[in-house]
Amino acid sequence: MADQATTASAAEESFLALFDDFARFGATPENGIARLAASKADGQAREHLCAWLEARGYDVLIDPVGNIFGVLDLGKGATDGHFFCGSHLDSQPHGGRFDGTLGVASACVVGTELRNAAHEGRISPRYRYYVVACWTNEEGARFQPSILGSGVYTGHITLDQALATADADGITLQEALDDIGYAGRAIPPRADRYLELHIEQGARLEEAGCPIGLVASCWGARKLLVEVKGRPDHTGPTPMDKRMDALLAASRLVLKVNEVANTASGPAHSSVGRMEIAPNSPNTVADRVRLWVEFRAGDEAVLDDMERALVQEFDIVEQQTGCAFSVPWRDDRAVLLFDAAGIDIIEAALDDAAIGHMRLPTIAGHDAVRLQSTCPTTLIFVPSRGGISHTPEEFTSRADMLAGFNAMVHAASALISTPVGDQDD
Amino acid sequence: MADQATTASAAEESFLALFDDFARFGATPENGIARLAASKADGQAREHLCAWLEARGYDVLIDPVGNIFGVLDLGKGATDGHFFCGSHLDSQPHGGRFDGTLGVASACVVGTELRNAAHEGRISPRYRYYVVACWTNEEGARFQPSILGSGVYTGHITLDQALATADADGITLQEALDDIGYAGRAIPPRADRYLELHIEQGARLEEAGCPIGLVASCWGARKLLVEVKGRPDHTGPTPMDKRMDALLAASRLVLKVNEVANTASGPAHSSVGRMEIAPNSPNTVADRVRLWVEFRAGDEAVLDDMERALVQEFDIVEQQTGCAFSVPWRDDRAVLLFDAAGIDIIEAALDDAAIGHMRLPTIAGHDAVRLQSTCPTTLIFVPSRGGISHTPEEFTSRADMLAGFNAMVHAASALISTPVGDQDD
Repeated sequence: MADQATTASAAEESFLALFDDFARFGATPENGIARLAASKADGQAREHLCAWLEARGYDVLIDPVGNIFGVLDLGKGATDGHFFCGSHLDSQPHGGRFDGTLGVASACVVGTELRNAAHEGRISPRYRYYVVACWTNEEGARFQPSILGSGVYTGHITLDQALATADADGITLQEALDDIGYAGRAIPPRADRYLELHIEQGARLEEAGCPIGLVASCWGARKLLVEVKGRPDHTGPTPMDKRMDALLAASRLVLKVNEVANTASGPAHSSVGRMEIAPNSPNTVADRVRLWVEFRAGDEAVLDDMERALVQEFDIVEQQTGCAFSVPWRDDRAVLLFDAAGIDIIEAALDDAAIGHMRLPTIAGHDAVRLQSTCPTTLIFVPSRGGISHTPEEFTSRADMLAGFNAMVHAASALISTPVGDQDD
Repeated sequence: MADQATTASAAEESFLALFDDFARFGATPENGIARLAASKADGQAREHLCAWLEARGYDVLIDPVGNIFGVLDLGKGATDGHFFCGSHLDSQPHGGRFDGTLGVASACVVGTELRNAAHEGRISPRYRYYVVACWTNEEGARFQPSILGSGVYTGHITLDQALATADADGITLQEALDDIGYAGRAIPPRADRYLELHIEQGARLEEAGCPIGLVASCWGARKLLVEVKGRPDHTGPTPMDKRMDALLAASRLVLKVNEVANTASGPAHSSVGRMEIAPNSPNTVADRVRLWVEFRAGDEAVLDDMERALVQEFDIVEQQTGCAFSVPWRDDRAVLLFDAAGIDIIEAALDDAAIGHMRLPTIAGHDAVRLQSTCPTTLIFVPSRGGISHTPEEFTSRADMLAGFNAMVHAASALISTPVGDQDD
């Protein structure tokens, strides 16, 4: 026990140091992170990740969408199989230090811990390889849709579609990856199991006073890009009843999107977080507005109702404003259940380690949501102070970070040691 | 009469050719103009204007805010006095060929016509100098507020304030003018009378089948920049009742701005043509939105009512959304009457020339509105097809353009020949 405590402490220090390293890349004066996907700051963070992995014996692979894979051979106990652990390094335009980065930093050190444990005979891995995965453009802030790199990996979007998506300046993901040198050529290894640590981005753990959340399910999401077409006229002389004001029409949709979630038959969230307005001049009636609409709920029927109400509103607002509506892009992420057997195994391991835990759903999408379609997947949450995220005020205490890291070590040790046949539901 | 007809025809050709020249600078595939103030295209149009003026004997002066003055000495008939005629060359982001340019092109050729007429003894100018004025940033599309160059000239805004205004990329007007070489050092001549030809940007002339409008008054305008402060949160997990959604709050204001004009006690227009949203990411609740609000009416009491209703709405929406409101910038353009004596003189001249005319108000602001505060001013309108403007579809027929040009020649000849004392109301 004395040896293990010493080892754990060095690992904890290594994890915290690596986490703090990442906070330098894209750091903002507010102690947050501005590290949009495939930006210069993202490139710097990626360089640091790759150097860290290579210095510790990982083989580093980059695939064509910029996903980074650090592959560690755990020894001769198993002949094949890849145990994945990871998250993402990109952030919102004014994001926090924890979202994504916590998962990447912990995955790195969990891997070296597993290798040590395997070499010392403390665990008997049933997977030959441990893989740190760092997924491209999870946030969807610079390039839409979100969870893009893991979406390509799991076949939800084609590589060509992903590389052709462009940011607000018209720069494609392909160009941005070329620019930072992260459009790779490697064929990634196939994940047989995936484990991800993430901040909750909600307040349930904090309210329950519980350090660890085991995510049992993920709310579904409907994301729609709505385009409103009006007509550009002078805002001065044009009679009010002759205007086709796309911004007025868009504003009515923003209110409707909000209303349908607040009046839904079950728990539901909705938002319009982004709008593009053209020509966006103070004295020209807006000609074209594009709205990024999101609906989220744990029940597909509630999602159906919200989307139907929005589409019905198109006709009403068209009659009020003369504007025309279209939906040039739509994404449907179904309500999802995470691997139940994995949660059972982790619960037993955390009970043995006397680490408190509870089951809960996630509302936000994560790379783990994509991976669950490919392999048994577990998502572990640690508390977010006040439940806030996507802002520099995002915060998880050192104690909670370490509880999360140690839970990951125990969870990964238990999952990687369990014969694959015993992991079925 | 044969001589005069020949002269007029050559002048008409010169006017149309100059007008068509200007349409090349910033031309768009839709046959419109993208010539934002102090842009490269604006610089090219300015170069063309200055070269045209200098080639015809005008002295060209540039003042520190980039206003261009082409000064023509009409001879020894009068000892002093400056008769101004002009408009602007900047356009909306996707504007038309007529707005502003028509007035500059006609002012150029009206000047050479007046000089010819004075030299040939057909008119006896009571002003020594004729001045073509091309005002900077009339549109207010790139830099706010609009009618900026004429506003500096007439003391409505200080030079320092004007030069410090920045576009959406943070480029100041000073920097933009330096960039195109149009931050001059000249002290401009003082206007003793101002005349401007402009397209109507409304449909009254077209509906009345009348070629010339004499603008008797200008609606007042209240322009407000409203800032909405919310809080950036993740659009997924954040509970709906814990969000402070600045875009939702802004959308409620857009609807209110529209409603107050439609329910006002007298004729009124209103608009929100521009919004800036931050961080404008699909999955982050908007933290800050800035709205450019305009109210316009011919009655100050109606303007007061609309502005009061908007400010009252701040409190309501603050309670609904938790967002905070402020008005960091506000501009109040009072209801204005143009020089009545000038209209009388022009009406008599147009009657003599058998050119049809009518009096009407303007709703849109023009450089002439600023000049009326400094000197007797007349604004002349020609029809706009369908009343539309600020779009590539903006259109005035050649026949209407020429009627406007000839009306300008007659109006300017009459005004410039009338002893100053006879022009008082």
